[in-house]
Amino acid sequence: MNLISKTRMFMPGPTPYLPEAMVQALVTPMHHRKEDFKELFRQVQAGLQQVFKTSNEVLILACSGSGGMEAAMVNTMAPGEKALLAVAGKFGERWIELADTYGIDKVVIQVPYGDSVEPAQIDAALDAHPDISAIFLQATETSTGAMMDLEGIAAQVRRRGDPVLVTDAITGLGTTPINTDEWGIDIVIGGSQKAFMLPPGVAMLSISERAWRRIEKCGRPRYYLDLRRERKAQAQGQSAYTPAVSIIQGLKSALDLILKMGVDGLVANAGLQAGATRAAILRWGMQIFPRVSGNAVTAFVPPAGVDPSKVMKMMRDRFGVLISGGQGSMKGKILRIGHLGYFDFLETLGMIGCLEIALTEAGASLETGSGCRAALEYYREFGKNR
Amino acid sequence: MNLISKTRMFMPGPTPYLPEAMVQALVTPMHHRKEDFKELFRQVQAGLQQVFKTSNEVLILACSGSGGMEAAMVNTMAPGEKALLAVAGKFGERWIELADTYGIDKVVIQVPYGDSVEPAQIDAALDAHPDISAIFLQATETSTGAMMDLEGIAAQVRRRGDPVLVTDAITGLGTTPINTDEWGIDIVIGGSQKAFMLPPGVAMLSISERAWRRIEKCGRPRYYLDLRRERKAQAQGQSAYTPAVSIIQGLKSALDLILKMGVDGLVANAGLQAGATRAAILRWGMQIFPRVSGNAVTAFVPPAGVDPSKVMKMMRDRFGVLISGGQGSMKGKILRIGHLGYFDFLETLGMIGCLEIALTEAGASLETGSGCRAALEYYREFGKNR
Repeated sequence: MNLISKTRMFMPGPTPYLPEAMVQALVTPMHHRKEDFKELFRQVQAGLQQVFKTSNEVLILACSGSGGMEAAMVNTMAPGEKALLAVAGKFGERWIELADTYGIDKVVIQVPYGDSVEPAQIDAALDAHPDISAIFLQATETSTGAMMDLEGIAAQVRRRGDPVLVTDAITGLGTTPINTDEWGIDIVIGGSQKAFMLPPGVAMLSISERAWRRIEKCGRPRYYLDLRRERKAQAQGQSAYTPAVSIIQGLKSALDLILKMGVDGLVANAGLQAGATRAAILRWGMQIFPRVSGNAVTAFVPPAGVDPSKVMKMMRDRFGVLISGGQGSMKGKILRIGHLGYFDFLETLGMIGCLEIALTEAGASLETGSGCRAALEYYREFGKNR
Repeated sequence: MNLISKTRMFMPGPTPYLPEAMVQALVTPMHHRKEDFKELFRQVQAGLQQVFKTSNEVLILACSGSGGMEAAMVNTMAPGEKALLAVAGKFGERWIELADTYGIDKVVIQVPYGDSVEPAQIDAALDAHPDISAIFLQATETSTGAMMDLEGIAAQVRRRGDPVLVTDAITGLGTTPINTDEWGIDIVIGGSQKAFMLPPGVAMLSISERAWRRIEKCGRPRYYLDLRRERKAQAQGQSAYTPAVSIIQGLKSALDLILKMGVDGLVANAGLQAGATRAAILRWGMQIFPRVSGNAVTAFVPPAGVDPSKVMKMMRDRFGVLISGGQGSMKGKILRIGHLGYFDFLETLGMIGCLEIALTEAGASLETGSGCRAALEYYREFGKNR
């Protein structure tokens, strides 16, 4: 049908862009070594501290989230030291790849896709390996939708005092409560293309004094991702190398919105989208994939006989909606829908109705309108609870 | 609640902007007397002819639709001549105001708000007043949602041969079939802020040779809206006075989209949005206001005891959705929702769900999800019929 369908990124990232952020960069050329950019950079640093809920410095790097993960590992792990890797999916496996690339000694806690790594598992591993110097994990595992009990895990780490806790919160920030300083998380990693409502290109890292002590004395070679250089430069409102100027300009606009609605408001907004979507999926009798879901992404199992790739194709071709399939060992088995950042209830509700059509045409047997009804009922309860 | 709600113009105009059209103007400064603009102007003229379904020239004026209506009247009605005005709502009443402003002798067919002027009424009036030199009407009356039988009316006019038929198709173009040449409509008036998906600022008029013969010999004084001047200038890819450059640039992008999907596709798209919305309203047991609706706007009567302004306010404050109330004598009695131009099914479905919440909170008793269900059922039938 020759009908209008607007492209909508219902993926766990990249996510819908905040238009005013995009236009701001378009209309305001800036050179990154001039005073106006430094002033902007400082405002963005301060805004990020509020989003990360920390008084630690938040470094801004011109790289994707994976670059941020690598920076966290190569700067904190001196040769000969041991890392604890908590792995619950494809992004957890990236910690293993990084450790193997650099020959870092590792202890791995690996749970099946859909499960979360539990505080008790971290506790046991730290007991068994008192020489672990840093713990690496995901706040939310994007490939499965699972959320970790970050507060509980942090408590296990902090009662040891010394080990550094590194959290990939790339899809966790703005979707899940992350109380960096209160819980004592040493490094928190974020990415521009998630709840920050921007294109990819910037990673952010908040870094505690405990982590800095490790970083300063870490003898591992690193150049572009050397956080010591960035710390020195960014204390002056600069970056060590050319920064991703347009994304940083966009961050200013995005932070204006986020801080106006409050970080907790942004988390609640993702919670509304996630809750409404899951209410529909449960009403349809389908299974939410992870044992414990975060708000960032809804991963669910379509009914037997329904081909996920057919559903994705129909959502894209007919409704302009981009959703994701499974990754890693879940490829071809689940569907994933993102709720990070710039989404509102109206479009989530519309997406649910379109998903019902696509699932039906791919072979599912669903009562017409039941998904929207469940989402509307969820909305009413959500409103009462606020 | 501190949640994200994106502003959506579900009004009968202005309508949602086509983003690529807006960005095109932003990134391409143009001077209106240079060759590149003339080339663009000629492309827009040719594209408009396809949308208007005419081989007549389509003039592009820097004014709103009301300016286009005035231009049509003051250029075709010589002093002492008589006009037939078909009035079915607030925009029909504008023809009366215009005629009175210029002391133009008039015969008025006025039907109650919600009704349409019928071909038989035009026929009778032309029989009763054989000296009528021009007929003025709306293809769709925006204030009530009513559609006229333009083909039938044009047939009555054309079998007389001489009178000039002037159609305000400002909300009709792109929502209703308008076969200008096939039906023999002399002047068709459009506006940028409707199905053309752009901000207000440009009116377009297609003008037949029959109309030009009247315009050329019309002795009424006119300056800015003198169509003879515009005809001469626009034959050279110019305008007589400074044109609305950014809107004309945007028209190029909008026409690219419209001609790619086809004018009939654009009409069908509005039909889908309108049909889905009306299916919901009828399911809710409410009354569609006009006797015969076009696709441009859905006007409906909320249940007794439900204050339309309360529904509008809730739609705006909670969901970012702007809808309209009644105009003229229907002020405070109906609600109106636009379907012109850049809308897709996903957001119409989401809007319907939000409208259900707003109507419910304003006192209506509705079965949760029944509107979305009706819209989804409509979508399925719509797909089968194409």
